[in-house]
Amino acid sequence: MDLTVRAAELDAADPLARLRAEFDLPPGTVYLDGNSLGAPPRRVADQMGRVVREQWGGRLIRSWSEGWWEAPQRVGERIAPLIGAVPGQVVVADSTSVNIFKALVAAVRLAPGRREILVDAATFPTDGYIASSVAELTGTVLRAVDVDELPTALGERTAVALLNHVDYRTGRLHDMAAVTELVHAAGARVVWDLCHSVGVLPIALDALGVDLAVGCTYKFLNGGPGAPAFLYVRRDLQETFDQPLSGWGGHREPFAMAPDYVPAEGVERARCGTPDILSLLALESALEVWDGVALADVRAKGLSLTGFFIECVDELLPPGTVEVLTPRDERRGHQVSLRHEAAEAVMTELIKREVIGDFRAPNVLRFGFAPLYVTYADALHAARVLADIVTTA
Amino acid sequence: MDLTVRAAELDAADPLARLRAEFDLPPGTVYLDGNSLGAPPRRVADQMGRVVREQWGGRLIRSWSEGWWEAPQRVGERIAPLIGAVPGQVVVADSTSVNIFKALVAAVRLAPGRREILVDAATFPTDGYIASSVAELTGTVLRAVDVDELPTALGERTAVALLNHVDYRTGRLHDMAAVTELVHAAGARVVWDLCHSVGVLPIALDALGVDLAVGCTYKFLNGGPGAPAFLYVRRDLQETFDQPLSGWGGHREPFAMAPDYVPAEGVERARCGTPDILSLLALESALEVWDGVALADVRAKGLSLTGFFIECVDELLPPGTVEVLTPRDERRGHQVSLRHEAAEAVMTELIKREVIGDFRAPNVLRFGFAPLYVTYADALHAARVLADIVTTA
Repeated sequence: MDLTVRAAELDAADPLARLRAEFDLPPGTVYLDGNSLGAPPRRVADQMGRVVREQWGGRLIRSWSEGWWEAPQRVGERIAPLIGAVPGQVVVADSTSVNIFKALVAAVRLAPGRREILVDAATFPTDGYIASSVAELTGTVLRAVDVDELPTALGERTAVALLNHVDYRTGRLHDMAAVTELVHAAGARVVWDLCHSVGVLPIALDALGVDLAVGCTYKFLNGGPGAPAFLYVRRDLQETFDQPLSGWGGHREPFAMAPDYVPAEGVERARCGTPDILSLLALESALEVWDGVALADVRAKGLSLTGFFIECVDELLPPGTVEVLTPRDERRGHQVSLRHEAAEAVMTELIKREVIGDFRAPNVLRFGFAPLYVTYADALHAARVLADIVTTA
Repeated sequence: MDLTVRAAELDAADPLARLRAEFDLPPGTVYLDGNSLGAPPRRVADQMGRVVREQWGGRLIRSWSEGWWEAPQRVGERIAPLIGAVPGQVVVADSTSVNIFKALVAAVRLAPGRREILVDAATFPTDGYIASSVAELTGTVLRAVDVDELPTALGERTAVALLNHVDYRTGRLHDMAAVTELVHAAGARVVWDLCHSVGVLPIALDALGVDLAVGCTYKFLNGGPGAPAFLYVRRDLQETFDQPLSGWGGHREPFAMAPDYVPAEGVERARCGTPDILSLLALESALEVWDGVALADVRAKGLSLTGFFIECVDELLPPGTVEVLTPRDERRGHQVSLRHEAAEAVMTELIKREVIGDFRAPNVLRFGFAPLYVTYADALHAARVLADIVTTA
């Protein structure tokens, strides 16, 4: 069947199609970089105006006791169902990097005697940078391993393994259930980085017994540029979760201004400083678009969209022009990575023509497909423009 | 002279009076808590709408290369003149607590062999909590000392002293020049916490040779609730500034996605994760109100306002009703702290009558006087309402 007709039929049958109208996107732009920065839900701009005028300006300091102080937990509870967590296990605070630091130090402290930290060799760099710092501070050794080599790498020395659920470069999705089981079988803790999987597919942290997880909120959750990240601490680990960024925000009685630090009883102890309210409330507003959205539908559309894009690439680009790095089976997130020798120039030209993906050195074209606002027609259009560029270049 | 007349004359002669119109404050409210949460400059609400619609929605991912990525340094340069720093020494990122962590660990690493951290015994609690964690992680010892006892406490063991420029509880201003000299004479480093002094008086970090400084931006700088904090690293210390939150934001080539962490050459190495753009740009907009404002004028008005308020308290309250904890000479910031046995109930009643200060346990009434938007008439009104409450209670 003709690809144009296919795209139209798929869009017409899309149960998530209504959500596109929730987002503010420039007309004529095909936006395939929601895996790097999600598009703004329309409601956010007005909400920010209200927060500044009514909460900050109108109520001033009183707003701290009218919902601001609890925002890290309240927004965490909005994320909890997206990662399979019952209430009381998620806070939103600080950046992903900072939360990785908290989680890794706490994990090392949970395992005295175990002196090795394993990190996914293909990890997004910041995870490895932070892990290296944690190793230096805690007197442990950092080892980078391929996820497929975990079975032999894990052992009695392993304190914790820090892993990316979806590889940021290739889009490969790891098997969280199997890997978590492997790590636990070695008596170690696992920290999952969900940056590229939250908002992509159903995640079952509680059901899989995951120990700790972090993730950003500005990709598929559309929380805004650099929006605060989340940290999940499994309920039964909270009492012994001893994180080093012991700011007053994590204190049991923050307003008692006590001289000694006593961590809060629950996941609030994962907080650190004064919460960044403007960004937190922008994120809270952005998360409202998920109300009533079934992650199973999101996942189905994401696989279908990325599959359709790969099919268009196969059909429209001359054979051998690009190499599809992303798994063609279901072991992928919602991005498609293509290898092309002149990837950087190709992406520059794509963006010039309003097809926005991104480039990852040295030769990767990345296209993210956010099921809430990307259509099959977008995917086809992107493949056509790409085909035009790589054949005429 | 009659206090009402005095207040009117002082307001009429106030060179900063025009700035009040820059702020969005509810009519009828006397806001004396700008030392906890500054009032919103009017321009911020509209600017936030523009940032969300035009930069995030309109330019999407492209905005990262159109001013977002450099925002931590750019906003830092707006703060630099307020703290006496030439360009290239300030970044805005993360919270005060997180920046204290970076600064203290880096300071300890600058002084191998020196195993003691000194912290102001009257410090805002989060500083002490973080210092305690740093001591644990770095194998150093934390010692709380009164600032007046520093001459005997400092010694060959001291790696670093962490001090508050203005005491958050009493409002006492410490002598930065003399104390910095003392700490340096002992061969140690000083980290100044400027939360309660930035935007209050001229600060001369460069001229005094201060090593490191942190400060928040949501008090007298009016950056918004939980706005990101700043960190100053003196130019000649930057090359050896080795901070433990080595996220990709501080990498020399963040977009090269290199496997190993190599810190940026300048103060950018004090960054960590992805910068929180919405909050950073709200702060940037808020800082515009300082354009053309002389800190000497701000300081003169702040001393005069707080002095006038103390005079009103002396005159209007029956003797012995409250005790003025804040120094009556110039060794104070722009807050006045009063001790009253029923401080919490008194503050509740004040706020009910739209005179907004705050309460600090166990018995302190705090009133902050932000010279950009507080008037002498406000100060007099607050003292009259306070007198009415404490005499009729």
